[in-house]
Amino acid sequence: MTVLLGVDLGGSSTKVVLQHGSTVRDQRVLPGRLSADGLPGLAAALRDAAGGDEIAGVGVTVPGILDETTGVVRRSVNLPWLDGRDVAAEVSALVGAPAVAMHDGRAAALAEAVLGAGRGTRDVYVLTLGTGVAGAHVVDGSARPGAHGAAGEIGHVSLDPEGLPCGCGQRGCLETVVGAPSLLRRWQQRTGRTGGAVSAISDAADAGDPDARAVLDEAGAALATALLGLVAVLDPGLVVLGGGVGESGVLRARVEAGLRARATFHVVPPVVPAGLGRWAGARGAALAAGRVAVAG
Amino acid sequence: MTVLLGVDLGGSSTKVVLQHGSTVRDQRVLPGRLSADGLPGLAAALRDAAGGDEIAGVGVTVPGILDETTGVVRRSVNLPWLDGRDVAAEVSALVGAPAVAMHDGRAAALAEAVLGAGRGTRDVYVLTLGTGVAGAHVVDGSARPGAHGAAGEIGHVSLDPEGLPCGCGQRGCLETVVGAPSLLRRWQQRTGRTGGAVSAISDAADAGDPDARAVLDEAGAALATALLGLVAVLDPGLVVLGGGVGESGVLRARVEAGLRARATFHVVPPVVPAGLGRWAGARGAALAAGRVAVAG
Ligand SMILES: [Zn+2]
Ligand SMILES: [Zn+2]
Repeated sequence: MTVLLGVDLGGSSTKVVLQHGSTVRDQRVLPGRLSADGLPGLAAALRDAAGGDEIAGVGVTVPGILDETTGVVRRSVNLPWLDGRDVAAEVSALVGAPAVAMHDGRAAALAEAVLGAGRGTRDVYVLTLGTGVAGAHVVDGSARPGAHGAAGEIGHVSLDPEGLPCGCGQRGCLETVVGAPSLLRRWQQRTGRTGGAVSAISDAADAGDPDARAVLDEAGAALATALLGLVAVLDPGLVVLGGGVGESGVLRARVEAGLRARATFHVVPPVVPAGLGRWAGARGAALAAGRVAVAG
Repeated sequence: MTVLLGVDLGGSSTKVVLQHGSTVRDQRVLPGRLSADGLPGLAAALRDAAGGDEIAGVGVTVPGILDETTGVVRRSVNLPWLDGRDVAAEVSALVGAPAVAMHDGRAAALAEAVLGAGRGTRDVYVLTLGTGVAGAHVVDGSARPGAHGAAGEIGHVSLDPEGLPCGCGQRGCLETVVGAPSLLRRWQQRTGRTGGAVSAISDAADAGDPDARAVLDEAGAALATALLGLVAVLDPGLVVLGGGVGESGVLRARVEAGLRARATFHVVPPVVPAGLGRWAGARGAALAAGRVAVAG
């Protein structure tokens, strides 16, 4: 028996999923942020998880930008020791199996499209809402990285040249309306409440709170505008909304209503919530592992 | 020796290209609009073009919407007798070789990306300016049709919700600024000149005419806005501008200058003119023919 391992390197823990083929056999959380000298320990943990089984392939997510042709990490804000390193080659040498690295968001989107909410649809756009807004177009089981590994920045499509300034240097980006900091700011402007997480807004909206609903109405309208342009250009078969507030039923209903109200020639795709939760990155890494695995 | 045939069905003529592998051996224009009872004649012309060589495959472009999974034409404005027909199956039966049908714009874009201006680049966005504005994203030699065959409608991305009404039912679409009717209307407003083709505007701009340059400035700015969003989402390696005014050097310079001035995080791709001219559709059909061809 051979196993595939998906490793999701995060800022506060490392998640590992162990599969026989596409069947999940084990999921482990290694607490703490992995450090530069932690790779041998990670390799030992992977061999331990595999037990006596042969490791056929390992996928590793990187929380940052990497060159997917060479595998070298360009820049990781959360794990800066990864910068300039070919982490897959290092893991491969330590574990003695083929390994491949992948952008964490793209890995999670791949998993959502192939195994999660997009399962069975060939052409899926995954939109993940968090502090930032990331997109991934998954066609025939492959998440398209773009020519320079920079695809998916739908959060930085400007919807309003007179809009709020964005960290990217433009104005009126989608992210300035639907990013978590923006949602929390609007929530605070309406209610005076500070701090907290966007889940509080989502929960309040579910309970019928008019301020929370107004904040999500505005976000839903901006998402509908951005998605209408995306539908015109890409014609996806399905849109998956994930991330903190992305799974809010109120927000999703607003997005769908906005798309329906404003579509003309467009074929409006279903908009569905992400399904894999916090294991999506590790599952995507395991999918990638299967593609580099030695037959066994 | 076997040959591949690319057939470009147009509203005023049918173009045929004959290839040995990827080498063009013959190009023929069959004058007139093909009629419903013209298919046997077309098949005879194809056999004649092939001479004694065996036809390994035929690609046929359709000027209209077709279901690329079944090959059935949904709607052709220029050749309405095609509606509901599987033209590739009919040609295949008449010629005795595998045949495949393809949307004409997508065929031309595929040829530009693979054989023309995009040759050697894996990820190319082809933008064709005419009465309408059509886009095609060609990745690894494949023009993506979208989940419902409706991808590429970048001309109907709304850039301004208060903009001019568009035939599609929205307002402020890219096409309302850069489509040929819009360019001619703005040219008329400035100069009083009516009629003519957009090539007159392009020629006048080349000669330094300030009105023509102002019209193309405005079009270039709108194209840069649309392309900046496209670059954020897709990260293409190259953009090919084709169609009547699309090959204007003045317009292309405006688009590139607009992209450079407004890009922030974006990796701005080169913007180059289309290279295959009016044979692009037939060449794209021949490419498609090569993919369904019997080995020979
Ligand atoms: Zn931005
Ligand atoms: Zn329109």
